[in-house]
Amino acid sequence: MKKLRPDLTSEDNADMPIEPTDFESGLGEDDLIDLRIWLRLLTCTNLIERRIRKNLGKKFDTTLPRFDVLAQLDRTSDGQPMRELSKRLMVTKGNITSLVDRLEEDGLVDRQTSPRDRRVQNIQLTKNGQTAVTKMIPEHNAWLTDIMAGLDRNAAMDLHALLGELKKSILLNQDEDI
Amino acid sequence: MKKLRPDLTSEDNADMPIEPTDFESGLGEDDLIDLRIWLRLLTCTNLIERRIRKNLGKKFDTTLPRFDVLAQLDRTSDGQPMRELSKRLMVTKGNITSLVDRLEEDGLVDRQTSPRDRRVQNIQLTKNGQTAVTKMIPEHNAWLTDIMAGLDRNAAMDLHALLGELKKSILLNQDEDI
Repeated sequence: MKKLRPDLTSEDNADMPIEPTDFESGLGEDDLIDLRIWLRLLTCTNLIERRIRKNLGKKFDTTLPRFDVLAQLDRTSDGQPMRELSKRLMVTKGNITSLVDRLEEDGLVDRQTSPRDRRVQNIQLTKNGQTAVTKMIPEHNAWLTDIMAGLDRNAAMDLHALLGELKKSILLNQDEDI
Repeated sequence: MKKLRPDLTSEDNADMPIEPTDFESGLGEDDLIDLRIWLRLLTCTNLIERRIRKNLGKKFDTTLPRFDVLAQLDRTSDGQPMRELSKRLMVTKGNITSLVDRLEEDGLVDRQTSPRDRRVQNIQLTKNGQTAVTKMIPEHNAWLTDIMAGLDRNAAMDLHALLGELKKSILLNQDEDI
């Protein structure tokens, strides 16, 4: 079994605070770069998501999916239809519907007829929902700033741009959308 | 509601095949770069994961968590203890245990006493499991190559390195590990 124990004197680990065990464990330089990118992407996403989930629970006694809905609704002034919300949060309409139902029971969102199209129901933040998310968003952003503090600002801009290239590549090579 | 419809003449979208609706929708240049990186990371991870799930289902009638276990076991010659597998796949020990139980029922993995430590049970691929994953891995890699075909190889190396910087930053700034 290779790499189960940290070898802190090896060059590979010199800059790492610990030898982490994650999706990348057991991969080597000889593995495909696309696979190495994917497993590193997945590792970073998992690590950040885990931190945010934990912080949201501890600080606001809420969950990531609930926060995601509220934060997404905060980005438009007159709410969003269920279908749009489901696409923006990249989850199924069934999942988003049950989430929204529970947020509505808790008085954080409600449904209003769209001013643009009377056939469409928009999900909107209530006053309480707005108050709640207005407290959460700056904290959530501060966690991210903390998480990414080790990236200098040029590296951050480069990473954002390269992830943009990756996203373009994914979208160009897809056979179908959801 | 902004950005609900694609504006294909605008400069922003000139290079994009479509105006995608995802975690990044509604974000602008004025938003924190750390937040923009996070939501782009999450979007890319979701898009790739969705593609791989769909392909695994269509081509091998299997799921991503099952593939993840088999592919991870393929990286070591004498199996891995449950605890190590759970850390490598970044899921709870409870989740991994029920996955492994089902893979064992299907004859794809079994448990063997570790040659290194008689108190530890290693999860190992069976012959059938090895045959199955040996078919899946090259296909899985080919999907990733296809997904990332739009990234030139220098961009791919840079992206891998910058995700490494991000990972280091996440690990340096964490208050506790799982």
